[in-house]
Amino acid sequence: MSTQTNQQVRLASRPVGLPTSDNWQLVEEPLAPLEEGQVRVKVLYLSLDPAMRGWMNEGKSYIRPVAIGETMRAGAVGRVVESRSGRFAVGEHVSGAFGVQRFWTGAADDQGNPLVKIDPALASLPAWLNVLGMPGMTAYFGLLEVGQPKAGETVVVSAAAGAVGMTVGQVAKHLGCRVVGIAGGADKCRFVVEQLGFDACIDYKEGQVAQGLKQHCPNGVDVYFDNVGGEILDTVLTRINMKARIVICGAISQYNNTAPVRGPANYLSLLVNRARMEGMVVFDFAPRYPEAVARLAQWLREGSFKSREHVVEGLENFPAALLMLFEGKNFGKLVLKIADA
Amino acid sequence: MSTQTNQQVRLASRPVGLPTSDNWQLVEEPLAPLEEGQVRVKVLYLSLDPAMRGWMNEGKSYIRPVAIGETMRAGAVGRVVESRSGRFAVGEHVSGAFGVQRFWTGAADDQGNPLVKIDPALASLPAWLNVLGMPGMTAYFGLLEVGQPKAGETVVVSAAAGAVGMTVGQVAKHLGCRVVGIAGGADKCRFVVEQLGFDACIDYKEGQVAQGLKQHCPNGVDVYFDNVGGEILDTVLTRINMKARIVICGAISQYNNTAPVRGPANYLSLLVNRARMEGMVVFDFAPRYPEAVARLAQWLREGSFKSREHVVEGLENFPAALLMLFEGKNFGKLVLKIADA
Repeated sequence: MSTQTNQQVRLASRPVGLPTSDNWQLVEEPLAPLEEGQVRVKVLYLSLDPAMRGWMNEGKSYIRPVAIGETMRAGAVGRVVESRSGRFAVGEHVSGAFGVQRFWTGAADDQGNPLVKIDPALASLPAWLNVLGMPGMTAYFGLLEVGQPKAGETVVVSAAAGAVGMTVGQVAKHLGCRVVGIAGGADKCRFVVEQLGFDACIDYKEGQVAQGLKQHCPNGVDVYFDNVGGEILDTVLTRINMKARIVICGAISQYNNTAPVRGPANYLSLLVNRARMEGMVVFDFAPRYPEAVARLAQWLREGSFKSREHVVEGLENFPAALLMLFEGKNFGKLVLKIADA
Repeated sequence: MSTQTNQQVRLASRPVGLPTSDNWQLVEEPLAPLEEGQVRVKVLYLSLDPAMRGWMNEGKSYIRPVAIGETMRAGAVGRVVESRSGRFAVGEHVSGAFGVQRFWTGAADDQGNPLVKIDPALASLPAWLNVLGMPGMTAYFGLLEVGQPKAGETVVVSAAAGAVGMTVGQVAKHLGCRVVGIAGGADKCRFVVEQLGFDACIDYKEGQVAQGLKQHCPNGVDVYFDNVGGEILDTVLTRINMKARIVICGAISQYNNTAPVRGPANYLSLLVNRARMEGMVVFDFAPRYPEAVARLAQWLREGSFKSREHVVEGLENFPAALLMLFEGKNFGKLVLKIADA
């Protein structure tokens, strides 16, 4: 095995606005022999996430930037193909931050990049990057711990057909909330309502978000889970209830700005309504992931919860596939298939 | 008494930008005889507040707008000069929303505009519009309930020499926090540090707020009590700590905008830092005012707390005096003296 070749997509330069092919470099190099305590994972599926855009920027954030020349960071699932650790056996499936490459090699007990066994019998491998992965954990803890919805309240979530949004909405339905999604296009809206069971979905591409909120949230908005920022955040701010909670999970509309970020001009609605806007980062909840996985997997098994992935194939297609996120072209959680098994 | 004349300042039209003399009308009318259950209060001091600007606008807010032709709303202290209620005797001092006029006449038990007895022996009458009045209550509950500062944390407050700011900072010092004010001009900054005991004060007129925060908040900002909004809010957002709390109390920099409100472009710092921005309205804490008054009055008596008022005289000067707030010309809580006793 150790004479095989690895392929990596490395960050070649920092983007201004949308990433271009110039920002990436595809590199081949032979795999080094495994050291004691290490394992080698063949990457099967990569997670493509809006947050990746932030990791490409220089400067302090909740996680260090990817360095120039470094393999692009990515969550992934794969299969152990070599092991010099007693903790992992060849053939086991694992998830971790394996990066945009064919093979990940590292210490089995690296605290900074923990390797987690996953059970493909519980859900498909792509679902382990979605509902049972980072987006699912983000949605679950962001909604429950920051949004704190109560049965009967109205929850609105943007990017509703995306990885985080679909879990936010379905968890909120399980909690007995009225759930209204915001998504781009009639197909996504139909999916969100008909397949995921949301009460309604507003197609922001029709430009009637304020009108849609008025119609579908007759009792106002108690929890808004924001994945997009920009104009939609401002519009929702005009419809919030007293003591509303706005979960700031992301701002995909702003990530590729070359102009300054658009701040929410209607933020004084927080004052009028004694409401709150609060940020969250999923890693803070890592010790509690198993609790969320157990609950979500149970719902998936029962059929009362759906996981939808949008699979694109080929490591070399990573740069183009990433752009789909920012163009709203993915329908469900976007994953990149690297290998069959 | 009932043959006396009242004078009222009424809202004549809604302002665009800064209020002008055209927005006001001074009206004289005879006082009607008192009805059973009513009291008449001679207004002694009026409270001038930034929030008044919002009350002059049409549209839904946390309180209904002042109507065209209506006496301008204002908090005030005064003396009971006539009474047909067993609850209030002539000569007693009271506070209430008496409005911009010489005499207030109303039901002693009006739940919508409660009359509260005050004790001039506990603090001066103007102090009852400041530390022991709405600004003090706003500062006290906004800081404690929304800001939730802990001893050793760093609290930053804008408009630090203003009515709310001075109480926020002094309460935070009593709690064992490091306290840094932001104020306009060297005189105000000196007052805040030397008289009120803040650890430092940044003069925003020198244009070095970011540098000042870096210097005076070496451990970052845990609580920011925002009275101003705009650029200062954005700058503080770049210095907040993990789990920081931003209290949205006001946004005086934006109240007279004819352009749209400036939203905080750096709001994604909330995400990175898992921080919170939350609005508050003092009225929510009305049942707990006595608790705050008792504690603040005790500190005033002990000399470990200061109340500073800026007194302007004359009902007819109300329009000009109100503008002082928006030009930063008041130094301490701005009150309008209407009568001696």
